[in-house]
Amino acid sequence: MSALQDRLLPTLTHLLFDWLEVDDLLSRPRYADHDRAGLEDLLGAAGAIAAQHFEPANRVIDDQEPAFEDGRVVLPRETHDAWAAYVETGFLSAAHDEADGGLQLPRTVDFATKVVLGSASVGLVPGMLTEANASLLLAHGSPTQREVFALRELSGEWSGTMCLSESQAGSSLSDITTRAVPDGEGSEDDPLGPRYRITGNKMWISAAEHDLTDNIVHLVLAKVPGPDGVVDPSTRGISLFVVPKVLVEPDGALGERNDVTLIGLNHKLGWRGTPNTALAFGDGGHTPRGSAGAIGYRIGEPGQGLRQMFHMMNAARIEIGLAASALGYAGFSASLDYARERRQGRPVTRTGKDATAPQVALVDHADVRRMLLAQKAYAEGGIALGLYAARLLDEQATGTPDEAAEATQVLEVLTPVVKSWPSEWCLEANSLAIQVMGGSGYTRDFPVEQYWRDNRLNMIHEGTHGIQALDLLGRKVTQEGGALLAALGRRVEATVALAREAGLGEEAAAVDDAWAEAVATARSGWATGDPADALPNATLFLQGFGHVVVAWVWLDVAARAGSPGDLAALRYVVRYELPKTTAWFTVVADREPLCRDLDASLL
Amino acid sequence: MSALQDRLLPTLTHLLFDWLEVDDLLSRPRYADHDRAGLEDLLGAAGAIAAQHFEPANRVIDDQEPAFEDGRVVLPRETHDAWAAYVETGFLSAAHDEADGGLQLPRTVDFATKVVLGSASVGLVPGMLTEANASLLLAHGSPTQREVFALRELSGEWSGTMCLSESQAGSSLSDITTRAVPDGEGSEDDPLGPRYRITGNKMWISAAEHDLTDNIVHLVLAKVPGPDGVVDPSTRGISLFVVPKVLVEPDGALGERNDVTLIGLNHKLGWRGTPNTALAFGDGGHTPRGSAGAIGYRIGEPGQGLRQMFHMMNAARIEIGLAASALGYAGFSASLDYARERRQGRPVTRTGKDATAPQVALVDHADVRRMLLAQKAYAEGGIALGLYAARLLDEQATGTPDEAAEATQVLEVLTPVVKSWPSEWCLEANSLAIQVMGGSGYTRDFPVEQYWRDNRLNMIHEGTHGIQALDLLGRKVTQEGGALLAALGRRVEATVALAREAGLGEEAAAVDDAWAEAVATARSGWATGDPADALPNATLFLQGFGHVVVAWVWLDVAARAGSPGDLAALRYVVRYELPKTTAWFTVVADREPLCRDLDASLL
Repeated sequence: MSALQDRLLPTLTHLLFDWLEVDDLLSRPRYADHDRAGLEDLLGAAGAIAAQHFEPANRVIDDQEPAFEDGRVVLPRETHDAWAAYVETGFLSAAHDEADGGLQLPRTVDFATKVVLGSASVGLVPGMLTEANASLLLAHGSPTQREVFALRELSGEWSGTMCLSESQAGSSLSDITTRAVPDGEGSEDDPLGPRYRITGNKMWISAAEHDLTDNIVHLVLAKVPGPDGVVDPSTRGISLFVVPKVLVEPDGALGERNDVTLIGLNHKLGWRGTPNTALAFGDGGHTPRGSAGAIGYRIGEPGQGLRQMFHMMNAARIEIGLAASALGYAGFSASLDYARERRQGRPVTRTGKDATAPQVALVDHADVRRMLLAQKAYAEGGIALGLYAARLLDEQATGTPDEAAEATQVLEVLTPVVKSWPSEWCLEANSLAIQVMGGSGYTRDFPVEQYWRDNRLNMIHEGTHGIQALDLLGRKVTQEGGALLAALGRRVEATVALAREAGLGEEAAAVDDAWAEAVATARSGWATGDPADALPNATLFLQGFGHVVVAWVWLDVAARAGSPGDLAALRYVVRYELPKTTAWFTVVADREPLCRDLDASLL
Repeated sequence: MSALQDRLLPTLTHLLFDWLEVDDLLSRPRYADHDRAGLEDLLGAAGAIAAQHFEPANRVIDDQEPAFEDGRVVLPRETHDAWAAYVETGFLSAAHDEADGGLQLPRTVDFATKVVLGSASVGLVPGMLTEANASLLLAHGSPTQREVFALRELSGEWSGTMCLSESQAGSSLSDITTRAVPDGEGSEDDPLGPRYRITGNKMWISAAEHDLTDNIVHLVLAKVPGPDGVVDPSTRGISLFVVPKVLVEPDGALGERNDVTLIGLNHKLGWRGTPNTALAFGDGGHTPRGSAGAIGYRIGEPGQGLRQMFHMMNAARIEIGLAASALGYAGFSASLDYARERRQGRPVTRTGKDATAPQVALVDHADVRRMLLAQKAYAEGGIALGLYAARLLDEQATGTPDEAAEATQVLEVLTPVVKSWPSEWCLEANSLAIQVMGGSGYTRDFPVEQYWRDNRLNMIHEGTHGIQALDLLGRKVTQEGGALLAALGRRVEATVALAREAGLGEEAAAVDDAWAEAVATARSGWATGDPADALPNATLFLQGFGHVVVAWVWLDVAARAGSPGDLAALRYVVRYELPKTTAWFTVVADREPLCRDLDASLL
């Protein structure tokens, strides 16, 4: 194992079993084949792979960016080794049905294994999107699409991508110009699904070209023109297509190349192990089956593309939050080890400093301890939040109908926070790791600067901070007459009561007050009923709400399972972090119009 | 010129002439040869060099890191070109006496030229330390040391470094182990100064080896053992030595190599154009003049090393703050241009979104405007703060004795903020620039990700955030019975009064209250008189105090010279930023012991 995994695995076990009571889940039929010892072994196996294949490769994949050579994207040998180990041990498909080759692992545990691997090298494996891609096909595809594409992805034989954005349509997907037209006579009856010809360019696609697998299964958003040639300008015009890099027979046998061409490779500041690509569909580079346009098969009904994509978006957003948290944890661990080892200066005492005394460890300085405790609170808080969301996914899948419905409500309102909060605060954690280590922190001899660079993507990809904020304040908070927010509020209330019983009166009161402030802020922001008043400061609401949510998570951890370390983190959050919310909330509650009304020529 | 310089130059001219009234300075004898038109031409010349030699080279020096080849550090051709242009136009020595080859430029204007060049490429030129080095020698060196070393540095013939840190002594300089012993018979009478043999290793030295100049003048902190062989363990034992890379005759002629060896080159996450090195003094690589140890010449009296070094540290810290601000401005400018150009989505209106309407520019979204206005407030606020500090340097140099004394007090209490606030908030500005640009922001096709990386060093080098915080709350706030703080307070009061007259009542009241809160916080933090109570949260005091100071600077700009853009930035600071101070100040005022008392094993 490694120092990082030796620290992380007990943290995860503690959260999973002492706090989230994963044992209780195991009595449900879906998980009946698992027991706690087996799950702990599985986490241990993930830790072993992480230490053996991921950690040593992390700097390699940063130094040796994916390169375009002779028409293909070449990845370092280490990426191939890690992908093989990941696939062989079954982690890729672990949460899926046994019938589909999976282990029927609870998502809560499955996502914990992703934290393990992500902490070791977040950019190494394009597994996340492959699995999300397969999940979408399993949920919305035809039996043949599931059999041919999804199962080959879950086995690791093929990999998958999500092709959403275009040059002129990133956050604004209604503006995509990729088009799909039926592929002539009989195209409706293709065994792989209604067959179309796809034309258009997509960008910001992770792992759309590489040499890890024989085929790559692209899921592509495109609009189908109506009989009059006109497309619906809204997102309701968007359909979803499966577009394989290499065309396949209904039995899965590989055929000729599809007309899908790599047209660009982005060079990023971090997360470099995963190629980030631009693709052209149907640019005439090939004419598959003798005619123009990339061949794609529609998934489900027309016009359902965005809904289908968002089916897997919640899980993907949880995964981003956990990836950000895993990076936060990795930096915390590296800087903690450094701070314990390295000696520098003397602590401040009443009598001043004694220059003849030996130097103390960095960790003996109050300000260094503050930076470490903050990292712990951010990183472990982010992990706890993400695992809590994963537990809600399990509740959706295996709870009673009432439990599942309640879990859905809570999950919907939490998802923007689960994605955004760790992306912001675990980036800050990585910055603090650099700061703790001083000059060493900014050199490439230590891993923390890379964690910080890698983490910078998380506030952007899979929906920017601003998009999450509009989702939260513009949609989730008001949805179902506020029922989603109320569902979360009942959970906060229950935690507050429990924490009071556990002797955490001060912290319970702080969270209780902060929750009330969050709810009042949402109400005040929406007082005029006009989105143009409520939403200009939505990002600040997201920030404040995120802080309240994480304080509640820490209170819940401490009340139910509190170790002394948990209590320290909770106290840090309550005393140092929670008071920040007022500055953010005030602007929202005041419906501050400064930025909305600003004359942009004054910038 | 370039888009960046076209935006920056009028901003600087506005601050210098409309706000800081540099015209008034020009009536003083030292600056009598200058007039406003000449100074504006000079800024324009800096802008031209920046656009021609610095901006185009900025990505090159990031890609082509300094390399160690055949015993020397090789820099790209672009660095040589930029250095030549910089030296030829006289910017290196511009603030110095005409007798020393300078232009007697006010520091306020001199530092503005550094903002111009820093915005174009912060890592390009090792000029900052060369000039600081020369300044120190001019202030504390013997006439021969000044003549031989300082003047050759000011002309750009040689360059200079500061060798302070060692592996075990970064922030804790009392622990340096570099030693200096008199170099035998007659060493006291060397024309270049008392001659010593220096042994020890130094690290984190900028530009200590390169091929830009024929010689490099190292200023080295070392301790001289007493007659009993024992050194003073405190910083009072530290002396300062000039140690040339190549030995020189008293007439400046170059002789044999000194025993100064490059032993390491750090590979950084940013600011890569400037080599960051480790040096060995007297490791026996050479035996100059036939005996062991690097030859160095003492500057001034023994035991004065740290005091002499800190003489130039205030200016160096202002320069770091301005470099951070210049990077903040460069990111602001790049992301603003992008946001004006690029179309994405539709604004939120009362009636919802109309998908058939054309997409709007990014800058038309309230949240994007918020991120741009924040960058403007951080970057221009940081520049204004740094130029204000530079104006205080001019006041020290040319004011009446009373004016100079008052300026010194204000400068002493401001310096930790001038260094730290832009380092933190202009880094945040760069992160916002990335965020505004979305995926493009994190690719290396655009400059903003590099600005963000370059800026990450500023919270560490020339004294970490934590060190600035102890300087502020542990020293400057309490010094002279609080007289420094009171001097700044009088300036804040004057601004508040002026702003009220100018119709800025709301903003004036906010700054007035925030200042009162800062002073009360310092008092409350020190209530027990025990540094162990007051200082554990010193960094949070620095953050809060910094926000108050910058709010005051913006209020002053707006009250004296307010353009509509200045007013928008002021309002942003007052409504979005200033309310954050309470969360930081409360912890300090409460003398929160959580981090001080934390059992580090719980981390």
